[in-house]
Amino acid sequence: MDFRNLDRCVHYRMLKNASIPKLQDVLTPESVKNSNIPIAAGLTFNYAARGVNNDIIDLLGKLAEEQELLPKYRALVSGEVMNTGEQRKVLHHLLRGQLAGDVIEKGKNLRNFYLEQQERIADFANQVHQGNILGSTGKPFETIVQIGIGGSDLGPRALYIGLANLLRPKIRAEFISNVDPDDPNSVLQRLDPEKTLFILVSKSGTTQETLTNENYALRWLETAGKRRNVNIRPAQHMVVVTGTPGPLADNPAYLDSFYIDDYIGGRYSVTSAVGGVVLSLAFGPGVFAELLDGAAETDRGALENQEIRGNAPLMDAMIGIWERNICNHPATAVLPYSQALLRFPAHLQQLDMESNGKQVNRSGQSINYMTGPIIFGEPGTNGQHSFYQMLHQGTTPVPLQFIGFSLPQMAGNVEFQGSNSQKKLNANLCAQVAAFALGKEDSNPNKNFPGDRPSSLIYGKQLTPRILGALLAHFENKVMFQGFAWNINSFDQEGVQLGKLLTNNILKGQAGPLLDEYMKLLGS
Amino acid sequence: MDFRNLDRCVHYRMLKNASIPKLQDVLTPESVKNSNIPIAAGLTFNYAARGVNNDIIDLLGKLAEEQELLPKYRALVSGEVMNTGEQRKVLHHLLRGQLAGDVIEKGKNLRNFYLEQQERIADFANQVHQGNILGSTGKPFETIVQIGIGGSDLGPRALYIGLANLLRPKIRAEFISNVDPDDPNSVLQRLDPEKTLFILVSKSGTTQETLTNENYALRWLETAGKRRNVNIRPAQHMVVVTGTPGPLADNPAYLDSFYIDDYIGGRYSVTSAVGGVVLSLAFGPGVFAELLDGAAETDRGALENQEIRGNAPLMDAMIGIWERNICNHPATAVLPYSQALLRFPAHLQQLDMESNGKQVNRSGQSINYMTGPIIFGEPGTNGQHSFYQMLHQGTTPVPLQFIGFSLPQMAGNVEFQGSNSQKKLNANLCAQVAAFALGKEDSNPNKNFPGDRPSSLIYGKQLTPRILGALLAHFENKVMFQGFAWNINSFDQEGVQLGKLLTNNILKGQAGPLLDEYMKLLGS
Repeated sequence: MDFRNLDRCVHYRMLKNASIPKLQDVLTPESVKNSNIPIAAGLTFNYAARGVNNDIIDLLGKLAEEQELLPKYRALVSGEVMNTGEQRKVLHHLLRGQLAGDVIEKGKNLRNFYLEQQERIADFANQVHQGNILGSTGKPFETIVQIGIGGSDLGPRALYIGLANLLRPKIRAEFISNVDPDDPNSVLQRLDPEKTLFILVSKSGTTQETLTNENYALRWLETAGKRRNVNIRPAQHMVVVTGTPGPLADNPAYLDSFYIDDYIGGRYSVTSAVGGVVLSLAFGPGVFAELLDGAAETDRGALENQEIRGNAPLMDAMIGIWERNICNHPATAVLPYSQALLRFPAHLQQLDMESNGKQVNRSGQSINYMTGPIIFGEPGTNGQHSFYQMLHQGTTPVPLQFIGFSLPQMAGNVEFQGSNSQKKLNANLCAQVAAFALGKEDSNPNKNFPGDRPSSLIYGKQLTPRILGALLAHFENKVMFQGFAWNINSFDQEGVQLGKLLTNNILKGQAGPLLDEYMKLLGS
Repeated sequence: MDFRNLDRCVHYRMLKNASIPKLQDVLTPESVKNSNIPIAAGLTFNYAARGVNNDIIDLLGKLAEEQELLPKYRALVSGEVMNTGEQRKVLHHLLRGQLAGDVIEKGKNLRNFYLEQQERIADFANQVHQGNILGSTGKPFETIVQIGIGGSDLGPRALYIGLANLLRPKIRAEFISNVDPDDPNSVLQRLDPEKTLFILVSKSGTTQETLTNENYALRWLETAGKRRNVNIRPAQHMVVVTGTPGPLADNPAYLDSFYIDDYIGGRYSVTSAVGGVVLSLAFGPGVFAELLDGAAETDRGALENQEIRGNAPLMDAMIGIWERNICNHPATAVLPYSQALLRFPAHLQQLDMESNGKQVNRSGQSINYMTGPIIFGEPGTNGQHSFYQMLHQGTTPVPLQFIGFSLPQMAGNVEFQGSNSQKKLNANLCAQVAAFALGKEDSNPNKNFPGDRPSSLIYGKQLTPRILGALLAHFENKVMFQGFAWNINSFDQEGVQLGKLLTNNILKGQAGPLLDEYMKLLGS
């Protein structure tokens, strides 16, 4: 395979010379009909308002071929070392399906390892649901609390919220992430220690925030036991999800342990035990399996559809390259018209910005073109009453990714003033797509809308586990394809190291005069 | 007063020609000590790592004088029509203090009107707390639910969450904003209708989402009454906050009504009845009064400190102009190291982007320089494990606004591995400031940190009501000053109108073929 920087690609230079079409000239009722690509499970990607015409799509398709995006994806799922910085395989796809030959390491078939963990999780969740596993004072668990940060928090939390309205949880989940002591305090004050099960999630087993909060949780359980004069055994209220081998692995003091390996990056780990334990306990292992199926179907489509017009993550990725490197847009907003996707933009913010916020190529050499954009977003229609003003009439255009569904998740979609709430929601969504794309001329410049703001729409019938899995995998694959196009390593995160180092220097009292001054401001 | 576009200012052109200093050359232990400006109530703004040297600050100060930022602020608080697009005064400062002469309209002293509303709110809250006002079946209210969107939601919600850990709420608050029916459904399913009090908040009295959710709430109360066979009178479980005169005003069916006027913009309304009712019911009127005091002290400092080095909102605003118009940064990240400020960035996102995301000047003429940036953010340390990779090593530098406190809000700041959680939190904060500013050279480009990423730090002892009021007003005034510098109207939002128009066209069946196609994708 040929790994070359984007600016060495023939078709990139051709794109650089292409003229940028006006959205008004591209977007028509016909193009809306003809710009749909199935993702999986009924979820569909529509790019009619994304601002590219057929010639540009052809060039983007050829650029994707020139950069060998599909062969690189195939190499990745085949177990090649695509995480060059850390010299690791990248195997999150293998958590939900096998797209190429067996991936064997030290005689171990890794697909089997992942399946074995899924079975162990399912069995554990079933035992808890059936009341065979109880708290150490004999009471059933009524709340699970995930302790984790970054990928051990954002993805699992986004998916839990994404399904909690649709599927009344069997066990309610809470999340603790921040080392700010107010975070564990405010969550735990509402809970009954005897009925609480913690899920401690740290791949490395050394995450400062997570270990601090583990300690906090164990003390909370211990203190409650003393105060109530009952025998709470703290470690028996905690299961662990961690990398093996690792400092948290194989500790029989915990109630149980579930494993991942080095080939599952934190921000790609929600379909591993990192998300699997909490989602299986909350909704049942069957729901987690459906989510994996939706992701697997998306993964397969992204590998097997050679033509860009049939491959949604590939199309989304390449239009993103167009927006970032040709149109020079610095950001992308993610706008789900679904309250259940409240925290999905925060997950994508990590997924995308931590993967592709890089300035060296996969060989560690500096590059001289833009890589991953700023990602932000809030649910619609809320955002309309907040930052959309700037999106419509500000001086920095921001491409948009809308997400919408035909049906709400819950009953109670009542009629009012001639339409139900879901229809109002979707009328707002569609109106925004058109308003951003087409704008409106007005002789008063203050009421003038320049339009030409590109957007895509991902849509489906209802946000189910399968659809949510498809949505997740769509963005994972989009980010991966963009990383290949930019020739960067989307799977390491060296940018988080310096802060950790300096933090430890401060805590060891070796901060130096500058940091000492800052710590003084904060009263230390 | 002289209203001129930024690019007509002498000192702007001088700034354009200034060389951009390296942060490494500006930031020293001495500069950290010497770059503090009190905001109010003990809250302080430190700009040592913001990337400006003394020469640039001098020029920024002169530009602020040339653009008459303080005289314009004085004109605003004196009741001049500064919202030129809508031909309205801008009086949110008058909600919390009087900084200039009386503002009289049609013989009415508007300060007295605002004080009268505050007193009525305090009285109402006290009556509810004392059990003199009960639900229509005779039970005390145990939950309040604010129904509002945009400014009627984001600010009140951010401040409620900002104080809920510090002050155990007397009455718990919930919020419904989205027209997505899953939003009211998921909130209301947890509540007891007989013990629920709604606060319906719509300044115009015509907000589609809010009226739809009002209808939803009234039906929920009515249905519960029938099912329980008790006489719930729905409108007696609802108070209204709205503009007077207006379609929701003076309706005796509601339990009570509280008023604002046209001079309080939605995103500036949290210190009016829009935030006052919910915060006074949740925490007591005294807490709301402290919050107003913190804001008032900030407002006064921003008006009376003529020198930029003594005026925190002015300095913050002018450095923002430097970053946006000279350094060409498209975004600013808000990073509170306080879990209680979880939703504060979302409030600032509206405040800033809706105020200053404009491309015409205050007279409605097109301008040809950048205005308001993209605003986004999440609490630290969470963000460190998410999007900070891109901030450290991405290709688009993003200026940062850190916020931190010496003390947590709750008890339970335990020691672990030689330090308590708050110390770990603040060590992380300080380490990030230094890592972003100074970077780290490494022969491996993948481990190289370019540094030169500017940030400021707003810090105080503890997040109290007074400090929270000061923090809020700091950003309100910063945004106002920037609007003056750009010569734009920060107080209208014409950019939200087109979407509303097209939504109504769809709901009236007058969408046209393009929108019809989009609605078909969503099953309508």
